[in-house]
Amino acid sequence: MNIAQAERTAAELARLLQDDAFAAFAARAGDLHPYDAAVAYLSIAPEQSELRTAFLTHLDPITLTDVLEELDGEERREAFARIGALRAAAVMDRMDNDDLADFLGELSEEARAPYLAAMSDAEAEAVQQLMSYPPETAGRIMNNRYVWLPQHYTVEEAIAKIRAYSDLSESISYLYVIDGERRLLGVVSYRDLILASVEQRIADIMRTRVIHVEAVMDQEQVADLMRNYDFLAVPVVDDASRLVGIITVDDIIDVVMEEADEDIQKLSGSGKDIDFNTRAWTAAGRRLPWLVLLLFIGVLSGTIISGFEETLDRVVALAFFMPMIAGMTGNTGTQSLAVVVRGLIGSKLSGRQALRLVRRELGVGLIIGVTCGLLVTGIAYVWQGNIMLGVVVGVSLLLTLILGTIAGTTVPLLLDKLRVDPAVASGPLITTLNDMLSLLIYFGMASLFLDFLL
Amino acid sequence: MNIAQAERTAAELARLLQDDAFAAFAARAGDLHPYDAAVAYLSIAPEQSELRTAFLTHLDPITLTDVLEELDGEERREAFARIGALRAAAVMDRMDNDDLADFLGELSEEARAPYLAAMSDAEAEAVQQLMSYPPETAGRIMNNRYVWLPQHYTVEEAIAKIRAYSDLSESISYLYVIDGERRLLGVVSYRDLILASVEQRIADIMRTRVIHVEAVMDQEQVADLMRNYDFLAVPVVDDASRLVGIITVDDIIDVVMEEADEDIQKLSGSGKDIDFNTRAWTAAGRRLPWLVLLLFIGVLSGTIISGFEETLDRVVALAFFMPMIAGMTGNTGTQSLAVVVRGLIGSKLSGRQALRLVRRELGVGLIIGVTCGLLVTGIAYVWQGNIMLGVVVGVSLLLTLILGTIAGTTVPLLLDKLRVDPAVASGPLITTLNDMLSLLIYFGMASLFLDFLL
Repeated sequence: MNIAQAERTAAELARLLQDDAFAAFAARAGDLHPYDAAVAYLSIAPEQSELRTAFLTHLDPITLTDVLEELDGEERREAFARIGALRAAAVMDRMDNDDLADFLGELSEEARAPYLAAMSDAEAEAVQQLMSYPPETAGRIMNNRYVWLPQHYTVEEAIAKIRAYSDLSESISYLYVIDGERRLLGVVSYRDLILASVEQRIADIMRTRVIHVEAVMDQEQVADLMRNYDFLAVPVVDDASRLVGIITVDDIIDVVMEEADEDIQKLSGSGKDIDFNTRAWTAAGRRLPWLVLLLFIGVLSGTIISGFEETLDRVVALAFFMPMIAGMTGNTGTQSLAVVVRGLIGSKLSGRQALRLVRRELGVGLIIGVTCGLLVTGIAYVWQGNIMLGVVVGVSLLLTLILGTIAGTTVPLLLDKLRVDPAVASGPLITTLNDMLSLLIYFGMASLFLDFLL
Repeated sequence: MNIAQAERTAAELARLLQDDAFAAFAARAGDLHPYDAAVAYLSIAPEQSELRTAFLTHLDPITLTDVLEELDGEERREAFARIGALRAAAVMDRMDNDDLADFLGELSEEARAPYLAAMSDAEAEAVQQLMSYPPETAGRIMNNRYVWLPQHYTVEEAIAKIRAYSDLSESISYLYVIDGERRLLGVVSYRDLILASVEQRIADIMRTRVIHVEAVMDQEQVADLMRNYDFLAVPVVDDASRLVGIITVDDIIDVVMEEADEDIQKLSGSGKDIDFNTRAWTAAGRRLPWLVLLLFIGVLSGTIISGFEETLDRVVALAFFMPMIAGMTGNTGTQSLAVVVRGLIGSKLSGRQALRLVRRELGVGLIIGVTCGLLVTGIAYVWQGNIMLGVVVGVSLLLTLILGTIAGTTVPLLLDKLRVDPAVASGPLITTLNDMLSLLIYFGMASLFLDFLL
């Protein structure tokens, strides 16, 4: 659907609700792809709280489950609150385990308890099993939409099982073969079954070289694996090699998007989980901690300048080049940071490669520094008619650009090596630290050559 | 493979080459997944040019093709140059059309001609057909690894065809049904074939509601479609509704990564296509144009300060808060920009939603501005012992933070609306423009209240 179609559909659904034509509403919404139904729901302004509640209340149970699976975070929590405990339990029994674990995992222990109590025992246990894996691991994003086959089955028996579980087998490409202890032995594709004759044994046609992941593997590594090897699905095993779930490529696309969003948050310091539907207070609350920290760092930069008050007082023109030098250093640092942060996705660097990269960026810093330094020396001389001022500005810029490039490269590499959360190297922090460094160098140089500047 | 394994494999392969054990090398490399073989190739330093050439020269033709498909841009062009025209032609006849079109599309008309001449006529024509679609459209990323079925086939005939094309059908999930004019009629999955009986007609078991895309559709839209609807593959049709290719989800992951990289490049102004293997000169060349532009804008900021030289001369302490005000404004602007740029992925905004977003960000700017403004008023008063200086700094910060948030939100939205390349709204540019705005406001305020500051 394009945006005009989506708006028309949303308006139509809202009108049906306002006219109390609930049966027509449920039929129309049930015909939509779950994603489109979710888009229609979200297009109701949050202020129209009653309309949102009516929307969810009058969906049929299956569509309601599908729509709730499409929602994220805050919106999903809010939607669950709207539908009431009884309907919520019914929805949860139907939901994919990974979406459910995702939702429950975001709640506090107390908020979670009533939901778990209302669910059927088997479902509740399965979900708690999933939630026992750490966040952002394979165990948390795997699902149970797969069909397994005992190794002693014939192709005919396998096909009978697929028939019986045909709703499960809709969206998947592989069948997993296990032994009596549920240990993963091999994999068979639908195509293998088609090409085999009906009396052949599964054990004879299965491929035994199955690439699998452990449930505790980091989701980013799983994404790298599936992306690099072009897999559609990968089986997940527990520490006893038992098959516990599969991860499908559509969940991986979401992981890839999440990781990219995280990188952008790091680079822009824009705070976690802010999208178009986040309220102003929430968004501001998430962005403020960084800004306050950066405010203090900014004041610290100020104290550097105040340390050179005398120099500045004697050559006020020095202030004219401050924003340029600080800005340029910040910008080159962010450029280097972006190259490193993106490059680290999907490829861990060996020590030798890291060294090669730092050398490369040093080269980049030199080339950029010499070019911009010469340029600004000329500009400063023409503008202020003072060749020494030009030289001080140009040489300072050269030095700060080299330092900025190196800082933008080594800081994230070091943090990655030390396994410290690289969010610490976020763009604004690098920018602000580079600001301070550049002011120190600039005013240091100026004070050194103060006699020639006057 | 983890990084240690990959390094060991690369070292092992290099040793085999250096020992002239070419048969052992080819056997070992042929056993690897193409991605791992490509990683081993890239781990040879570019300076070891002969070793790189030997690596490619001694691969068997199939592995060589696979490895070249895994490489990107510059590395692939270089690799093709290493293997010579004859082998290149053999590789190209084997390569997937989308990878080939991608490679040839990056060459100049003249550089492309000899490659096309050396290829078989049928292949050359197929690739030129692909290249006739604009870059970044469905037509450019589609491939021909699919099996089509005439509608009059029985299930038995279909299975016979799949057997015949079993290497093509390895990695795919759907079979496409076409009429005599190659027009797309429906789709059948392997699972449908398994569940049907052998004498049934394909036309009777196919699903006719096939979601497809036009070859000229933007690749980003295709990615949104596949991501939102969780498709594994989507058929591509030309303007006469004829089936011309399919797009598979693994290509879409690459599109999603590319789009994320583009966003990060925009936000950091770090230049296109710079990765860990780009040479320093190339990387510097790509990053310089932005930096030089920003240099001039930085000098412009300087002229703003010089316009307030008198004010600054009388209250030097004003300079102490310059980096903080400029930095904070730049940072909030970048935060807003990041939220908008990421949010625009996969969801086009209606006018009403855009307005809601701008109102939200205005709210965020107000909350952040008041908090930080009050904070810095206190700090400035305590530090400099001048309440009016505190008020000027605090109110300036409040105003610039609101402006910064609004600029970071509206500029990308407007550019998106006007269909101007949003790269123009790149992070450094917003940052630098916000710098200028903030300096104007800050020194404007200070000059206005100059008498109270002394």
